[in-house]
Amino acid sequence: MRAPRGEFELIDAFVSVFDPSKDEGVILGIGDDAAVLRLRGLTALTTDSVMEGVHFTPAFSPEDVGHKALAVNLSDLAAMGAQPVAFLCALAVPPPWVSRVVRVGRGMAALASKHRCALVGGNVTRARQLSITITALGRVAHPLTRAGARPGDVLLVSGSLGGAAAGLARRPRPTAAQLRRQRRPTPRVELGLAAVGRAHAAIDVSDGFVQDLRHLLEASGVGADVDSTAVPRVAGASLEQALSGGEDYELILAAPRSRVPELLRAARSLHVSLTAVGRCTREPGLRMPGSGPLPGGFDHLR
Amino acid sequence: MRAPRGEFELIDAFVSVFDPSKDEGVILGIGDDAAVLRLRGLTALTTDSVMEGVHFTPAFSPEDVGHKALAVNLSDLAAMGAQPVAFLCALAVPPPWVSRVVRVGRGMAALASKHRCALVGGNVTRARQLSITITALGRVAHPLTRAGARPGDVLLVSGSLGGAAAGLARRPRPTAAQLRRQRRPTPRVELGLAAVGRAHAAIDVSDGFVQDLRHLLEASGVGADVDSTAVPRVAGASLEQALSGGEDYELILAAPRSRVPELLRAARSLHVSLTAVGRCTREPGLRMPGSGPLPGGFDHLR
Repeated sequence: MRAPRGEFELIDAFVSVFDPSKDEGVILGIGDDAAVLRLRGLTALTTDSVMEGVHFTPAFSPEDVGHKALAVNLSDLAAMGAQPVAFLCALAVPPPWVSRVVRVGRGMAALASKHRCALVGGNVTRARQLSITITALGRVAHPLTRAGARPGDVLLVSGSLGGAAAGLARRPRPTAAQLRRQRRPTPRVELGLAAVGRAHAAIDVSDGFVQDLRHLLEASGVGADVDSTAVPRVAGASLEQALSGGEDYELILAAPRSRVPELLRAARSLHVSLTAVGRCTREPGLRMPGSGPLPGGFDHLR
Repeated sequence: MRAPRGEFELIDAFVSVFDPSKDEGVILGIGDDAAVLRLRGLTALTTDSVMEGVHFTPAFSPEDVGHKALAVNLSDLAAMGAQPVAFLCALAVPPPWVSRVVRVGRGMAALASKHRCALVGGNVTRARQLSITITALGRVAHPLTRAGARPGDVLLVSGSLGGAAAGLARRPRPTAAQLRRQRRPTPRVELGLAAVGRAHAAIDVSDGFVQDLRHLLEASGVGADVDSTAVPRVAGASLEQALSGGEDYELILAAPRSRVPELLRAARSLHVSLTAVGRCTREPGLRMPGSGPLPGGFDHLR
């Protein structure tokens, strides 16, 4: 395929790889000054960017980049217990990427299609560095915030951690599974939906387990005892990678003990592992014996 | 004020300059994985970016940059006849801008406050080039699309054109008014609202009058005769700057003749000039005697 010529041809080529929306709530999709949606009930809204050299490297395929740009947003919706509905996509494209933008769209469209999340708007501008900023909308019956955890709640974490950090490491050479975790994170949308009404609080692990858990604890006004040896690790990931490596896009849930068995059953039926790693306490602060000094997480400006 | 240290301090400093939302539709604002809004009726959604070196130059103050980033999005809402409600803001910040981000926020907050548009979410990442991507939401009773113009409709344009292009030109030296037009565009939100139920179609002039008018004509399946001498020009702007210079953020409206007097009255009461410049025709194509060969508009990838 030849490279698109100019802004409008590039937009047409990008948009053409997405399924047209069949959602009756989308009154007006792409092509006017704004999209128009009929959004009933409560709507969760989040925005997140992926940036060349920060969130992806030359080792990522264009499809990986497109997948990741949407995945990090759907992960935020998952952490709110929201069902994805639609998204808008702003592309900043340097000349060498113009010919690859349609492949970025394909990676994004495959994930969008899986979650029936419609592309309803966007923008393209030139830039020196490729970046993709997505704003995603979801339908949410009862928002699952960071702030609902109570003393006594069990802390659970989905999947396993440290995969993205291990995928970034040069030595030892990352495994194919680690690379996949880094390049194609799986937003835990179905688990987030299953946690509504069962968990008291949730957050996604984007900046690192310890840092994101601390956000949940602070927002909830509780502390926690966590067993670092219980934190599920991707094969080959070090304890430090599991505790402070960012970009795992797993969920941390805080749930009352009585609800834990049904949460574990729900996770099993979704083929997602869910592991109890500790307990919320009235006493503030995070205690994690055996982990050594608690690591920080990822800071985008440092 | 000392520069913020790290991502979370920068976010706190940025957010602190915005009015807290008093809109009862904002159930959960900034600080969780996603915002939660109760959006009734129809919602217009748009996303637009401003990029260092493309949409602003070192001559812009940080406040100008923040104003413009929101203004270009509110202009899209205006063109749909939507009332701004809320927005999300993704910042990509290179190190030299960290200390100026709060000033960017001040320029943005002043405009947001004027339109009672609440900041409900955002993101920050590091980058080599400053860019701001905003997604804005508006309430819309009857969307004013590009597609409703009919043969016989009068074409009107708000304000005057060519100011941003003249502001960019080096010679003759731009006037203070031209610079202001370029750096502090005024989104025609109230005029867009006044046009609902009166105009058949609308678009905002972001890429250039001729190019954006063509989008409206094509979407509506009509042509037009336009009197180029009637197109209102900013003092000192050339005809070419008025016809093809982008970033004016004025509105083009197509309205039935019977509704023109009330549109002109509404514009007068809003202290916005509104000028009839031509007529829609059944015959396709844009005819503009006296303008010479019709210029193109701005293409972000060329």
